[in-house]
Formats: sequence, C-alpha cells, structure tokens
Amino acid sequence: MTELLPNYVNGRWQTGSGEGAALIDPVLATELVRVDATGLDLPAAFAYAREQGGGALRALSYAQRAVMLAAAVKVLQGQRDAYYEIATANSGTVKNDSAVDIDGAIFTLSTYAKLGEGLGDRHFMLDGEMARLGKDPLFQSQHVLTPTRGVALFINAFNFPAWGLWEKAAPALLSGVPVIIKPATATAWLTQRMVEDVVKAGIFPPGALSIVCGSSAGLMDQLQPFDVVSFTGSAETAAVIRSHPAVVRHSVRVNIEADSVNSALLLPGEAAGSESFDLLVKEVAREMTVKSGQKCTAIRRVFVQETMYDAVAAAISARLAKTTVGNPRNESVRMGALVNRAQLVSVREGLHTLQQHADTLYDGSKQEWVDADPALACCLGPVLLGSRHADDAAVVHDIEVFGPVATLLPYRDSAHALELVRRGQGSLVASIYGRDVSAMAKTALALADSHGRVHSVSPDVAALHTGHGNVMPQSLHGGPGRAGGGEELGGLRALNFYHRRSAIQASTAVLTQLG
Amino acid sequence: MTELLPNYVNGRWQTGSGEGAALIDPVLATELVRVDATGLDLPAAFAYAREQGGGALRALSYAQRAVMLAAAVKVLQGQRDAYYEIATANSGTVKNDSAVDIDGAIFTLSTYAKLGEGLGDRHFMLDGEMARLGKDPLFQSQHVLTPTRGVALFINAFNFPAWGLWEKAAPALLSGVPVIIKPATATAWLTQRMVEDVVKAGIFPPGALSIVCGSSAGLMDQLQPFDVVSFTGSAETAAVIRSHPAVVRHSVRVNIEADSVNSALLLPGEAAGSESFDLLVKEVAREMTVKSGQKCTAIRRVFVQETMYDAVAAAISARLAKTTVGNPRNESVRMGALVNRAQLVSVREGLHTLQQHADTLYDGSKQEWVDADPALACCLGPVLLGSRHADDAAVVHDIEVFGPVATLLPYRDSAHALELVRRGQGSLVASIYGRDVSAMAKTALALADSHGRVHSVSPDVAALHTGHGNVMPQSLHGGPGRAGGGEELGGLRALNFYHRRSAIQASTAVLTQLG
Repeated sequence: MTELLPNYVNGRWQTGSGEGAALIDPVLATELVRVDATGLDLPAAFAYAREQGGGALRALSYAQRAVMLAAAVKVLQGQRDAYYEIATANSGTVKNDSAVDIDGAIFTLSTYAKLGEGLGDRHFMLDGEMARLGKDPLFQSQHVLTPTRGVALFINAFNFPAWGLWEKAAPALLSGVPVIIKPATATAWLTQRMVEDVVKAGIFPPGALSIVCGSSAGLMDQLQPFDVVSFTGSAETAAVIRSHPAVVRHSVRVNIEADSVNSALLLPGEAAGSESFDLLVKEVAREMTVKSGQKCTAIRRVFVQETMYDAVAAAISARLAKTTVGNPRNESVRMGALVNRAQLVSVREGLHTLQQHADTLYDGSKQEWVDADPALACCLGPVLLGSRHADDAAVVHDIEVFGPVATLLPYRDSAHALELVRRGQGSLVASIYGRDVSAMAKTALALADSHGRVHSVSPDVAALHTGHGNVMPQSLHGGPGRAGGGEELGGLRALNFYHRRSAIQASTAVLTQLG
Repeated sequence: MTELLPNYVNGRWQTGSGEGAALIDPVLATELVRVDATGLDLPAAFAYAREQGGGALRALSYAQRAVMLAAAVKVLQGQRDAYYEIATANSGTVKNDSAVDIDGAIFTLSTYAKLGEGLGDRHFMLDGEMARLGKDPLFQSQHVLTPTRGVALFINAFNFPAWGLWEKAAPALLSGVPVIIKPATATAWLTQRMVEDVVKAGIFPPGALSIVCGSSAGLMDQLQPFDVVSFTGSAETAAVIRSHPAVVRHSVRVNIEADSVNSALLLPGEAAGSESFDLLVKEVAREMTVKSGQKCTAIRRVFVQETMYDAVAAAISARLAKTTVGNPRNESVRMGALVNRAQLVSVREGLHTLQQHADTLYDGSKQEWVDADPALACCLGPVLLGSRHADDAAVVHDIEVFGPVATLLPYRDSAHALELVRRGQGSLVASIYGRDVSAMAKTALALADSHGRVHSVSPDVAALHTGHGNVMPQSLHGGPGRAGGGEELGGLRALNFYHRRSAIQASTAVLTQLG
C-alpha cells in the first residue's frame, strides 16, 4: 500500500483511521499516495484554529505577519524541485504548466508579503476618513476594518493545488485569520506537502494553518458566525455550500468561484493577419492547451466578425496542430494529461454535447500521444468547435467543458458581440483584441459589469501583457453570476473578505486614540 | 370596503385582482386601506424595470441622478403632513417616533443627493489607482466599479416604511440601478404613498421605481444573475431568502439585516450618578421606548459592573415610570402602540420566555393607557428585566424581543464584559459609556469585529451624540453573524452593493481613455 498522508489539525499530524482514497498518476495510472480524514475530531480542530491560531495571529501586526509570509516563500522556494515532481506525477502537467501553479503560488505569496510590509505595525486598518455626524466636528464617525474572529475554511479545486492554497491563504494569514484547507482529493498531495513544509519550518503560530485531506464531510457543520468559507469548484457544489444550514443560519461569509464560460473577442475591423488577429489566435491556442484547458479562466468562447470566421478558424487550427500531447516527462510534449479518468470522461461527454450544436473545426481528440499508453493515460488533444449561428447555440454559452475545448462564434457588429459575450451570464474574464485605443476602452467598460476582469490586448503590449488566463495578484479574481459572485486577490482588496467593517461613532478625542 | 391601494409595475398603476389584506390602526382597530398583488405580471414587471428602468438610469451620470434624488426630497418634504397622518394611523406612533422614520428618510435621501453631486458627470467609478503588472509601466491594471445590469429588489420590514424604502432606494438609484420595493404588508401604506408621490412627480425615468404591495409570492423567482436583493426582517425569512433557488443558482447578491441583540455597556469605574452613568440610563430608557422598542438597533442588553447593578436598575426604572403610554393622538402620550396584534402577541410571548430566566425589575406592562381602549389597542408599557447571572442567562443573549423590553446584566471586569457582549453573536450596534478616552477607544476596537457600529458616548459629546439607535447615513448599518452579515449606508460605501468591481488590464494608453 502507498503512503497515507497525514492531516494537520489541532496542532498535530494525524492520519485518518480509514483506508483512504488513492491519488493516481493520470499518465501512468499508478497509485501515488492515499489521503483520509476519517476519525478526525473536527469540532476540536476548528476550536483550536479559531482560538489558538486566531488569538496568536491577531496579537501580531500586519508587518509581523508579512515577515512570516516572506519566510514561507523561502521555504517553498527551497522545495520547488519536489513540488514539480509531485505535479508531474499527480497532475500530469508539463513543466510550463506546473509552473503556472507552483511559481504562481510563490509569486502570489511573495506579493502579499510585500503588500503586508506596507501595512506596517498595526492591528487593524482605517477605512476612509472621519466623517462629521453634525455641524459640530466633535462627534464623528470613523470606519475601521478589523480581522474577523473566526477561521477561514478553504474548499479547493483540483486544478491548482499550489496556487489555490496560497492565493487564498496569503491574504487570510496576512489579515490575521487562521486557515483550514481542504484540497480536492485528486491532487491533494502537493497542497499537503506545501503545508507540511511550512508547518515544519515553524513559521506561523500553532493553529494558524491546518489541512484536512480526503472527504469534506462534516467540515461545513463546524462553521460559526465569524468564520468565512471560500470555495472554488463546480456550480453544483457551490449551491450546496450556499444553502448549507451553517451558512444560512449564521450568516457565514461565503466566497464562491464557480463555472465560467469566458470569452475572447476580436474587435471589428481587424483584418486576417493583422497584429491583433495574430494576438487573438496565439492567445486562444495557448489558453486551450495550457494545463489541458483545466483553468477556470481559460477561453471557452471566441467571438470574431462574421467575415473573419474562416480565417480565424484556420489560424487557430494551424496552431493547435503543432501541439504534441502525451507524457509530460518527455521533453517534446507540449500538453500533458487531464487530471484523472473521471475528468476525461466528463470532458468527452461535454464535448459530445457541444458537438450536437457546433461544428468541429479542428479535432485533436484522435491524435497520437507521445510516450503514453492509450489504454492508461488520461490525455486528450485540443478540439476547436464553431457555430455560424451564435444566437442559436445556447448550449455553447451555458456549458463549460473543463478541458482543451473552445468554440468559435461570429458576430454581426459591436452591439451583437457584447450581447453574445454577456450570454455567459457572468464570467471570470473576457479578453479583447484590437488596436483602436478608444474602442478598446469602451468595450472594456461595457464588459466590466459582467466580468471580474477584462484583459485588453493591443499591439503595443504584445510582449508585455500577462495573458488572458493568468491570474495576477494585483487584479481582482472572481466574477458575477454564473462565475459565483466572488472576489479574490486584487491586491489589498483581498483582505476585505477576512475583515469586518465597522463604524465607530465617537468623540473626536476617542477617535484620535484609535491610533 | 376600504380603498385597495394600487401597485406600480410595468410603468402603470395596477390594483391586485384579489380582495386584499387590510391594514389596521393598532390603536383604534379600524381598517385603513387594503393591499393586494394578485394577478400582477411579475416577469414583465421585472423585465420592464431591468430593461427600461436600468437602461435609462445607466444612461445618466451620477450627478444627473443626484439631481433626481434632490427633486424627490422636495416632493417628500411637501407631503410631510400626510405622511405623519398615515404613520399615526397605521403605525400607532407618536410624532417624535414618526419623525425617526419620515424625517430620517428625507434626511438620508438628501444626504445621498449631496454625495451624488460630488461624484460628478461620470458613468462609473474608479476603484483605486493603476497598478503595474510587471516592471514595464506600459501594461497595468485599473479597477472600476460599474452599476450592475439588473434590478434591486427590496423586501422590507414593517417598522420603517419610509426610512426603510429610501435608505435603500437612494444609493440604488444614485448607482443607476432600478428599484422594486415590497413593503411589509402591515405598514405598506406609507411606502406606497411616498412611491406614488414621487412617481406622479415624474422625476425618475419609467421603470426606475416600482412597488408591489401585499404578498411577496413569486418575487424571488424573478431574480437573475445581475439582480440584487436586500432584505430586512426576521432571521427565519432571511434563511428562506438566502437558500432560495434563484440566489443559490444565479449568485444573486444578497444583503440581509436580521435579528440583533444589541448592547449598551457602562465601562468599569463609573460611579452611580456620574455623567456617564446618567448618559447610559437616559439612552437605555430612550431606546426601550422610541417606537415602542420596535427598532432593529434598539438596546436589548445592558451591561454594568456588578456593583452598579442595583443603582442602574433603579435609575432606568425611575425613567421608565414617567413614560405615558396610549393613543399617539393625545399629546400627553410619550409612547404609542406596537404595530399590530400579531406583534403584541409575539412580544408578550418573548417577554414571557425571558421572564423564565430573568427577574422583572420594572413592569410597565400593566400600567394604564391614555385614551386607548384596553380591548382594542396594541399598547404595551416598557419592561426592564435583569439577571444577576449573566453567564447562565443564555436566552437573554439569544432572543430579540421586538418591543419595549431590555435586560440588565452584570459583569465582573472588562474581559468578562466583552465576552458577554459577544454572546450576541454579531449585532448591529453596541454603545459604550465612559470618560476614559483611551479605554473607550480600546473597547470600541475590541467590539468592532462583532458589530456593524460602535457608538461611544463620553460626557464631552453628551449633547452632540446622535443616539445609540439612530442610523446615520454617514455610518455603516448592518452587522455580522446573527445580525445578517449585511452592509448598508456608510456614505458612498452603500453604492458598492449596486456596483460590480472589475479589473481592467490593458495598455496604459487604453486605461487613460477610460476617462
């Protein structure tokens, strides 16, 4: 039997009492490790985190906690090779794709270390300035943000075991809020290993960081009024979390990042072969294949003027044809596997559904794999779909196929394009491609209310732009409606979720004492 | 039969097709008017508001919408007498109590008119400054706040038919988001009349303001991903709203203000008869009796040092004994009725429950009423309870009796006091009384994370402070946990609920075009 990874709760490492669920190499189909949470004393675990962890963290200032984040960065940097090995084995990703997760995590954590340093030796944040409550300036209102007196429970997705942990834990810990992380079982190993490394380095106070691997049963039941829960995953599970009695009864604050049918939009007036045209084509092909399309932010719908449909289809297809698929250990391979067989089956089913309503413009699903056994590996080549009837293709706007699949759709004019993009009913990100600066600004603003992020690519930033799907810690991550309505990152904005806003109405003499 | 008040949806006045629910004078027990929403075409009503109202509002700038708020203020000011008459008849409140609702509404609306003027001729708000996304300053991130492309549904409470409408509608309309208001049936008349006056004045574009009186059946079903819903009322109904399929499935943004067991705290070291002592006593008596204690923000728990228990009990009781109760039309009456028989029964039941666990220190429940028929009027004199065992009196920290009832509780020391206050599990407001400026600041900060507002009363602001229970538009209104987790008002912060935050990542050339 493979190793059973221990959980870390209540200040000690504890293996579950069950047999555990096996984590599988999606290319070789070998068992790697097992995880199990059976028999953990969850009420004690949450109380320990809330009281010991929370108390100790709140006793520190932002700057002191920032120093701890920076120390965690060093620990993680020292173990990068081990993380890459785990990612290759457990996620089936090529090195560049593992980097998005691992180095993205370390970069995000280090960004919050730096931001925290700037917050200085304080224990709360002022929110705005004093406001008079009458003509006399002696009695005023000052809003403050203080860390919530609870735990932050993270229920994470399989696609970013490293980044998904730290992009949430960094702002939580910096805020002074203890973290309990429940990684997705399929790829829990990397999360568990990172937590182990950081815990063993003794950086954070006891109770600040806990991890439960395996089943999430019973976790939500522990939540109390001042706790928060952040979930990344399917809309179905999101609905379960939102309507959980603890959330409904105790007003537990919830952050959700769920399905998103993201868009890329080539603005009108861009000819085939123009710089903007090429930038769109390159980005779509990249987004479809990075991490085998298993990114919440990946482009799912590509909108181009009707007259450009054939040219864009041909250009994207030509790029996709160059994508070698197979064993990520082989250096000639550009795209590895999907995370497991269940996901492979789900993506194939979703693809089949879309194909009932769309043409297949490029079919990589039958291409040969490098160094991978067709009977064992969970690989799938990229597939570009298209429909000349964008208005009728309802399913294309509704279903997110979480793999290397995107659909090309033509629009008549700008208004039609915006209308079609909005049929995603709220997305994480839309990217726009063009060279007319004024049209770019106008389009970005028009899409802002239905997207957490609008990524604008013009030829002047061809070499500088950070990519449609890459989540930068400086920018908001999340989206309204179907995307879950959550807000993460965005620099210091991320700290709001872990703080409570309160108005202190008092004599100016008292307010100036707040410090 | 009394008049059946029309609803205003879909751009026209429409009476329901049912018989309607009668609104009753809680003092005279006469029927006043009826309301009914049977047969309204709600899908059409919401679509009209969303498309006609939303489109027209978003086409205006903040400053233009602010001018409309100011015009609405004028219309409302012109009809104040009529509103006071409705309040007396339908809410059974004395003039001073009606003022909290009516003049509070007009003041709040005028505050947002002024704040909106300052936002100028813009159609969106910048959120922070540009942030570099790499070493090169050519590609950056700028966060923006744009009005959500949906409707704001307000499901309101009976106790503030005027203020409850405008404290929500003012920031929504200023944000460019159309409003559909569903007032509590018991006191819907005043809300309906104000909407009627403003609609008939032709101030806002068609679809900007709608009202549905009577049953809320079917309203929540209309909500779509970009809509928002704001609810004020019981925790039970709040739970139904939170777990409604439209909310759970479409990530509809929800704001809840629910039960709250608010506190008043006399800091240690204040002797009987000291200024701070007197300020606490006065405020507790006032809060218990204003609107017969039917305020979400009213003081329910009073914390004093053990040694002060008897003196505070005697002083509050002495003040309560002066409260004349009865028909609000009689000028000698200081406290009118509860809103209706159902509330009277509910308050009596709650009081009975508390009395199982607490002593009755002052009992006004049997006092005689002025000008009111004991068989008809829904009056209840104030009741002060007390328990010398604050730790054991669990029910006192858990149950909000929505009437002229409060409970006195002793604490040992500061730490014990904070612990007891926090047993409210999240409240709208706590007020603290003392003269030690440093202790006041420290206590305010310590209570900030569990309260939406901390109101600090020191002798220097005795004549200036705005009152424990008065909600000022400059300060946040809402509270974590049991209080619902919502945020309203707080100056321009109120606009956030009606805006979507989005990061625009683009060439600096594009970002500077945003304007």
